[in-house]
Amino acid sequence: MIRVYTSALFLAGALGISSETLAKEPIEPIEPISAKEINSAQMALGKKLFFDTRLSKSGFISCNSCHNLGMGGTDNLKTSIGHKWQQGPINAPTVLNADMNIAQFWDGRAEDLKEQAGGPIANPGEMAFTHELAIEVLASIPEYAAQFKQAFSTGKIDIDQVTRAIAEFEKTLVTPNARFDQWLRGNKDAITEQELAGYNLFKTNGCTSCHNGAAVGGTSFQKMGVVKPYETENKAQGRAGVTGKDEDRFVFKVPILRNIERTYPYFHDGKAETLTKAVDVMGRLQLGKEFTEKENAKIVAFLKTLTGDQPSFALPILPPSTDKTPQPNPFE
Amino acid sequence: MIRVYTSALFLAGALGISSETLAKEPIEPIEPISAKEINSAQMALGKKLFFDTRLSKSGFISCNSCHNLGMGGTDNLKTSIGHKWQQGPINAPTVLNADMNIAQFWDGRAEDLKEQAGGPIANPGEMAFTHELAIEVLASIPEYAAQFKQAFSTGKIDIDQVTRAIAEFEKTLVTPNARFDQWLRGNKDAITEQELAGYNLFKTNGCTSCHNGAAVGGTSFQKMGVVKPYETENKAQGRAGVTGKDEDRFVFKVPILRNIERTYPYFHDGKAETLTKAVDVMGRLQLGKEFTEKENAKIVAFLKTLTGDQPSFALPILPPSTDKTPQPNPFE
Repeated sequence: MIRVYTSALFLAGALGISSETLAKEPIEPIEPISAKEINSAQMALGKKLFFDTRLSKSGFISCNSCHNLGMGGTDNLKTSIGHKWQQGPINAPTVLNADMNIAQFWDGRAEDLKEQAGGPIANPGEMAFTHELAIEVLASIPEYAAQFKQAFSTGKIDIDQVTRAIAEFEKTLVTPNARFDQWLRGNKDAITEQELAGYNLFKTNGCTSCHNGAAVGGTSFQKMGVVKPYETENKAQGRAGVTGKDEDRFVFKVPILRNIERTYPYFHDGKAETLTKAVDVMGRLQLGKEFTEKENAKIVAFLKTLTGDQPSFALPILPPSTDKTPQPNPFE
Repeated sequence: MIRVYTSALFLAGALGISSETLAKEPIEPIEPISAKEINSAQMALGKKLFFDTRLSKSGFISCNSCHNLGMGGTDNLKTSIGHKWQQGPINAPTVLNADMNIAQFWDGRAEDLKEQAGGPIANPGEMAFTHELAIEVLASIPEYAAQFKQAFSTGKIDIDQVTRAIAEFEKTLVTPNARFDQWLRGNKDAITEQELAGYNLFKTNGCTSCHNGAAVGGTSFQKMGVVKPYETENKAQGRAGVTGKDEDRFVFKVPILRNIERTYPYFHDGKAETLTKAVDVMGRLQLGKEFTEKENAKIVAFLKTLTGDQPSFALPILPPSTDKTPQPNPFE
């Protein structure tokens, strides 16, 4: 299932453009994942685990519930729904291209995808399970036991393997080949004049000082509300919760703008329902700039060129539970 | 994506067995769906709708939430979880091979898959939406509008089209090629002696008087508790709710036993967590028979030969909402 493409450099060469051309822009094309970067046994296992609701106490919630791969790797809700319909504290970030983030979660409290993956399973407000019970469930299912053995060459499943496998699958969730990437690689017809004008506004107004790199974000932590404060009822404090420093209040990881047309609603509180609104708020609060309606429309048009090929794979068929598998407890 | 196989008759011919051999057994092999039986445009649309959480008020629940196609077409819960974590009144039946049922729902209140599909969307305890709002959501999404137009050749989406498309997709969810079907078609090595002994017990004890046909069930309504009453706290009354007749109390549609290893827990209340338990209860309550431990194990072994090829298809990528799409209301 892993797509293997030729490298960007090769493509650039074939198209007669130098690698220097690519280097000039603050946004880089997404490189497709190469099979050699991925442990395919761990990835195949992780794909099943990502969809397995038995990693939750209720037996109803999987990773895919809030990071829905048919819906941009998000749930498209302001904040997520957890065990017993608890309202989550923050907007679920997309899992697409998430490996490009400098750290995981809005406040960056997890170093990488592997560390992140363990969080929701044991979070009482999310999947509400324990790592111990998750292992007990998986170990009771012979097909899983065999697949873990194959992927990790040990006879004993542990949470480290579970999160490593999920992370390995998530690493493959990149979205190359966006129209904007085609443009970056030299195909000047890949985007319209309106979209190009939007990109130029995006650059000249300084959006790229935070939203840059291959993921168009995810490379730094920044304060939400630089010029004017951001008003929200959301209680999230951002980096301050991790660093303990007062100056880190309302400092969040800059979200990825790849596939932004699919990852609505926007901001850590999900309060901006449309891109038009999000661009307007960002302009005023972060840049001290009021975009005209036309400028806003151009930037929005540009942002929609960042939608790449969505990961395509067969819905995994999960191995059935056995008489020994602990039962889910949805209503306790 | 639709698998086209040669017909059972042809296979029987090729293997040198007469069609009479096939006809002798009370269980028939599942015929694969042929492409010509399916409207492919409606099916492709229905596949997306089946996975689309925007058909629920919360934006969180799709058909696949309770009829999970990675998990035997069920949620593997005693009773399902609905809007705001409401506890459902009855065990979610599998959607696999469901078109073979004489009617839909445990009480048969829907004539066919199309009629069934409209139920959960508008049920306040399930997806808690309205048909009107569902149409409004779909009509606001240009990709859906175009796909409906292509599938139904009209410019206006209605609920009849929505349910017809979902039903068309569901019709493809058949599971041919179970080991038992291979045996029925003449491959005597496809099942073990233990499994064959289980099948003979299943037949000679009268299980096949209700569990027969290609789906091994779904062909009639029967009382739960023929010889002895079934004790349960579940309030479902069965057919009586549809016919108004007192003699139809606790009369339910006989469930499909295809893929039964994957569709746990069992019975309309989901009270039997294992096949061992289910076989034991069925023996005592329906047949007045106490199976020995060995007999029970043989029948369970036979039942596990009914697992067929699970439907395989790419996880559908759903078209994004637009600024005009009504917002989900998960917490209202």
